Amino acid sequence: MPAPLPRRAFLARTAALAGASLATTSRTRAAAASTATDDAVGRHKSELPTPALLVDLDTLDANIAKMAAHCRAAGCAHRPHAKTHKCPEIARRQIAAGASGVCCATVGEAEAMVAAGVRGVLLTSPIFDPRKFARMAALVGRAPDTLLSLGHALAAERLSAEAKRRGVTVDVLIDLDVGDHRTGITPGEPALALARAIARLPGLRLRGLQAYSGAASHTAGFEKRRAFSRAALAPAVETRALLRRAGFDAPLLSGGSTGTYNIDPGEGGLTELQVGSYVFMDVNYRVIGGQADALYADFAPSLSVLATVVNTSPAKPEQVVIDAGTKAFSSDSQDKPESKDGRALTYRRFGDEFGALTAAPGAALPKIGDRLEFLVPHCDPTVNLYDRLHAMRGDKVEAVWPIMARRG
Amino acid sequence: MPAPLPRRAFLARTAALAGASLATTSRTRAAAASTATDDAVGRHKSELPTPALLVDLDTLDANIAKMAAHCRAAGCAHRPHAKTHKCPEIARRQIAAGASGVCCATVGEAEAMVAAGVRGVLLTSPIFDPRKFARMAALVGRAPDTLLSLGHALAAERLSAEAKRRGVTVDVLIDLDVGDHRTGITPGEPALALARAIARLPGLRLRGLQAYSGAASHTAGFEKRRAFSRAALAPAVETRALLRRAGFDAPLLSGGSTGTYNIDPGEGGLTELQVGSYVFMDVNYRVIGGQADALYADFAPSLSVLATVVNTSPAKPEQVVIDAGTKAFSSDSQDKPESKDGRALTYRRFGDEFGALTAAPGAALPKIGDRLEFLVPHCDPTVNLYDRLHAMRGDKVEAVWPIMARRG
Repeated sequence: MPAPLPRRAFLARTAALAGASLATTSRTRAAAASTATDDAVGRHKSELPTPALLVDLDTLDANIAKMAAHCRAAGCAHRPHAKTHKCPEIARRQIAAGASGVCCATVGEAEAMVAAGVRGVLLTSPIFDPRKFARMAALVGRAPDTLLSLGHALAAERLSAEAKRRGVTVDVLIDLDVGDHRTGITPGEPALALARAIARLPGLRLRGLQAYSGAASHTAGFEKRRAFSRAALAPAVETRALLRRAGFDAPLLSGGSTGTYNIDPGEGGLTELQVGSYVFMDVNYRVIGGQADALYADFAPSLSVLATVVNTSPAKPEQVVIDAGTKAFSSDSQDKPESKDGRALTYRRFGDEFGALTAAPGAALPKIGDRLEFLVPHCDPTVNLYDRLHAMRGDKVEAVWPIMARRG
Repeated sequence: MPAPLPRRAFLARTAALAGASLATTSRTRAAAASTATDDAVGRHKSELPTPALLVDLDTLDANIAKMAAHCRAAGCAHRPHAKTHKCPEIARRQIAAGASGVCCATVGEAEAMVAAGVRGVLLTSPIFDPRKFARMAALVGRAPDTLLSLGHALAAERLSAEAKRRGVTVDVLIDLDVGDHRTGITPGEPALALARAIARLPGLRLRGLQAYSGAASHTAGFEKRRAFSRAALAPAVETRALLRRAGFDAPLLSGGSTGTYNIDPGEGGLTELQVGSYVFMDVNYRVIGGQADALYADFAPSLSVLATVVNTSPAKPEQVVIDAGTKAFSSDSQDKPESKDGRALTYRRFGDEFGALTAAPGAALPKIGDRLEFLVPHCDPTVNLYDRLHAMRGDKVEAVWPIMARRG
């Protein structure tokens, strides 16, 4: 776990981040204005063009504070995943609350965060392209505390070559495959062999391990999830011991998720949490259940999509149509958008531009022109559909934050 | 059908479009550069960061030319749907080939197209927000040949109020619900009543009808599709006759799709096609079958996503992992990305950032670092995930086109 920053240095850094971030915001907003609506800051929610992506600032800040307090109490660092929000303003708030930095899933995200003044960036996803290794080495030149996860000896060789060319030393984590069989190297001897390869390569410095179990994160039921995550992490903990016995000083063990934030830290577990969704929450996470509750309620939903009823039809009186479809809500899961205020409405995707709502027996159907807010099925890919996030203080827009680094 | 432009006027207009479009491109590209990679123009495909969205220019131009020739021969106008591409450069090519303009699904798309110099914009989706009506009235002030579809008397009243305020006359189509029960008013008497309401309202001029059957567009099997689409359009054709008998001169009947482009035009059918996907094609459309072929092959796939194999695992030797998941391919249908060069690989979504590939028995699995191109499951929402479209001449990037007007 990195040492905490002295208070004065911390405040200076936060102020610098705020300035850098603001500059980026203005630049991006000016660009966005060529195709977008007029400035929304100061407006009431009822005046926003729909569909619009909203975040409730009080809830966002409470989620950030709660996770930071949890990590402090658990003696575990946290480096929240910025692939969830792609928003330097939110990264800044997470770091101000005590996060070590942010994780990024793509080189573009990492570049956007560093450009906005965010430090402590960890690239969690594998890359395999000479130009991307060169971009990461360049980024380390600008922000030396940038980290990279690696799960393949060939990737280590390529990164080393670029680090050497740039004259930088890149801090790396070994990404372990702890059961997803998606990224990472097999724990145990294969990981040790990769550690030895990294040690031989110039320009790389091994800092620890990454172990992420996607399967654990969304296991329904707290006890099942705990058992699953403990079992998934065990080989990572053993691999860290194996590396220590082989003489490696590489203490970081980074991983975990919003689903396992209260399972993974501590003895025999992670030294750093890569929690992402907790800032926003979504239906996918609510349904996994909490330690004490049927619905996971440790963090409150701060993210919503505002939509408008744009059609009703006498040919189908039991349904109304809203202006939010496949381009407004992610469609990667079976979970559906849910009415934020708990109205008994069922959403059905109705093409790229539309959704259909039906009401439970006895519940009122909205009328044409009505505006409704929905919790989103899955936060990360939903945020990824938007250019802007409206930061709401109550019903007023306090700021408009650009969503950075979408796909090229 | 609108009268064709004299050749000189047409050339002048096309040149103006090209200029306006270029200016927009530069502005947007400069903005994008703050988070993006360096300029890709002139590069070989192998040098692009992945995932990347590509369009093959020869195929794109052939698709545009084929549709334009078909419409000329069928005596039917076409106003291609720009929600598919959100790309003024492609709209310009469609209009240069003979299209009457482009359709748009959102006010933001319509504004982006008009700002880029594109004319003949038809907003096909209903809106229900005073500010959006005001924006459309303002757009008509800048581009008087802009059209709007309406399916509700209240929407007509609001648009009329904004048109009056701006001192403009807005050309409108009545949107008919021909069976999808998604947007539009019931054909027959309800539509006639709406026509009368529109006639009484200042600032509106009725130009015709819109009739789109989403259900017809993707009906598998040509004969079934023909029967379905004919049945769906019949009430629209009858409504047009009803309006004519009531004294309305509103000849436009706009609708149809890439699936029904060779079914809907002509006697007892549409006067104008709103074809969208034909420029790109996708797996969703290929599987509906053509008039003579098991696969729909009237238009060739021009759109692809380039991805890289970023992990292989001895723990799962039958699979490789690529850097293209939920944020790189639309996930609104059961159809999967398909290898562009016909390799017998099966794609599975593997989270937001990744996909897994397995090979059919006897087929070779790609290796780490290999680059592969995929046809996309559904073109519109896939394009919507990207900021840029790489326009390829063979294996070289000829231009990079911004994708405009994503969600707010």
